[in-house]
Amino acid sequence: MFKSRLMDCAAQVQLHLDSVMEPMGDLPVVQAMRYASHGGKRLRAFLVMESARLHGIAPDQSVWPAAAIEAMHAYSLVHDDLPCMDNDDMRRGQPTVHIKWDYETAVLAGDALQALAFELAANEAVSPKAEVRATLALELARAAGAQGMVLGQALDMAADKSDTPFDLSQITALQEGKTGALFGWSAQAGARMAEADTSPWETYAKGIGLAFQIWDDVLDIEGDAAIVGKAVGKDQDAGKATFVSLLGMDTAKARAHELVEQSCAALDPFGAEADTLRDVARYMISRDK
Amino acid sequence: MFKSRLMDCAAQVQLHLDSVMEPMGDLPVVQAMRYASHGGKRLRAFLVMESARLHGIAPDQSVWPAAAIEAMHAYSLVHDDLPCMDNDDMRRGQPTVHIKWDYETAVLAGDALQALAFELAANEAVSPKAEVRATLALELARAAGAQGMVLGQALDMAADKSDTPFDLSQITALQEGKTGALFGWSAQAGARMAEADTSPWETYAKGIGLAFQIWDDVLDIEGDAAIVGKAVGKDQDAGKATFVSLLGMDTAKARAHELVEQSCAALDPFGAEADTLRDVARYMISRDK
Repeated sequence: MFKSRLMDCAAQVQLHLDSVMEPMGDLPVVQAMRYASHGGKRLRAFLVMESARLHGIAPDQSVWPAAAIEAMHAYSLVHDDLPCMDNDDMRRGQPTVHIKWDYETAVLAGDALQALAFELAANEAVSPKAEVRATLALELARAAGAQGMVLGQALDMAADKSDTPFDLSQITALQEGKTGALFGWSAQAGARMAEADTSPWETYAKGIGLAFQIWDDVLDIEGDAAIVGKAVGKDQDAGKATFVSLLGMDTAKARAHELVEQSCAALDPFGAEADTLRDVARYMISRDK
Repeated sequence: MFKSRLMDCAAQVQLHLDSVMEPMGDLPVVQAMRYASHGGKRLRAFLVMESARLHGIAPDQSVWPAAAIEAMHAYSLVHDDLPCMDNDDMRRGQPTVHIKWDYETAVLAGDALQALAFELAANEAVSPKAEVRATLALELARAAGAQGMVLGQALDMAADKSDTPFDLSQITALQEGKTGALFGWSAQAGARMAEADTSPWETYAKGIGLAFQIWDDVLDIEGDAAIVGKAVGKDQDAGKATFVSLLGMDTAKARAHELVEQSCAALDPFGAEADTLRDVARYMISRDK
């Protein structure tokens, strides 16, 4: 059931992204934006739309911030894949943007996708309440910037260059930026749209974000390259600290389970209505890709 | 008088940018953000603060969008200078970010500066009215994205690759994106903060943006490298269409003067109070750098 809802949401968000990019013409940069914003699991969009549903917000409103966070995520992937960053040629089984087009197009398409994210989050259609639109935009900027996602990437870069491997608190800070910041914004979007308390969602997102990342490290060792769809064992080969290298495989898995339980518990106020989001939390540590 | 006000504004905006970046720590990406957001004429910030002053908005409010547009401009310069784009080693007489640090740091610092721009434009301190904050953020996203500044850059890329030189309407569209979009947002910021009519400001900005760009092309041929502070004759050498190559030097200069006069006339409703902004318009076609 969670998976079919996830697919419905993905389809809805894709339609929305396609329709907002339709009037943008057909220059290579715009083609690359469309290409980069296709595919993926759409977990962040789902967090937006499900949290919105629980707060009584209609999908024709919540699809806007859902599309916004996917545009933001897409930009981060395009730039992450660049030769100067992770230098990945493939993403989701397809050539990355700088391979399919070129370096310049990839930089510009990423830049424009970030701007698009704000255009969607602050759009009049998000909410009749300007306060909601302004807050979503402001919090999205905080989640994306040098104290959010880019902080995570900057710490990741520092980890690459560091002579001593990062410790657990450093790796946690790194991941809270890299994955946690956008997950946090997504899960809180519904409460923000309803001007309700965001704190249960903050707890929920923190747990699933960290569990997601621990599981990435687990899959990095146990995963099968064909299933995971990208190079496996990359971090391990590079001698970089991961949750698994720091905690050991068993403790890492136990910690991920514990985090997922905390996430599920944070949604107690919403009762059975939040079961789909509890499924999302459990999915974080059961996925094989 | 205009120049001393411009310098006052520049100092104020610099202090503001420094203070908002102060809590961001000292990772190379953040150092690079600070470095990239120093210097420059601050024309865009000045447009924000002067248009705000004319609409009765206090400087402690208008300094926020003023800093926002300078963060956005700084990001665009950092990415423009990258090896895959203009491949410039120097900017304002200093090594560019990817030279002083590295390619990855430059990409990330630019990305974070774009996010910072939205964090400043949507900030609670900009205005007690959420409508104002939401609109500033939304319009900033439009000005920065694939139908604004990035469109200009994408057209510039297409011009580089095109076998036939661009014609006047294509070059105009290119420049309206590249320079005009951020100038437009800046000049309209004051009216937006006061919830007043933005149309005189739109006319004003269109004129000075295009005049600015025509003058860049003029300086590209007539300027002295030591004064202009960057490589001169670059566009000419590359055989790229410019306003000067399309119109001829004399007609280009006459057109720039005409645009400046139109810009000045658009501010008639504001009387002598707008003289400083008329000086800004005239400065566009008198500057030697």
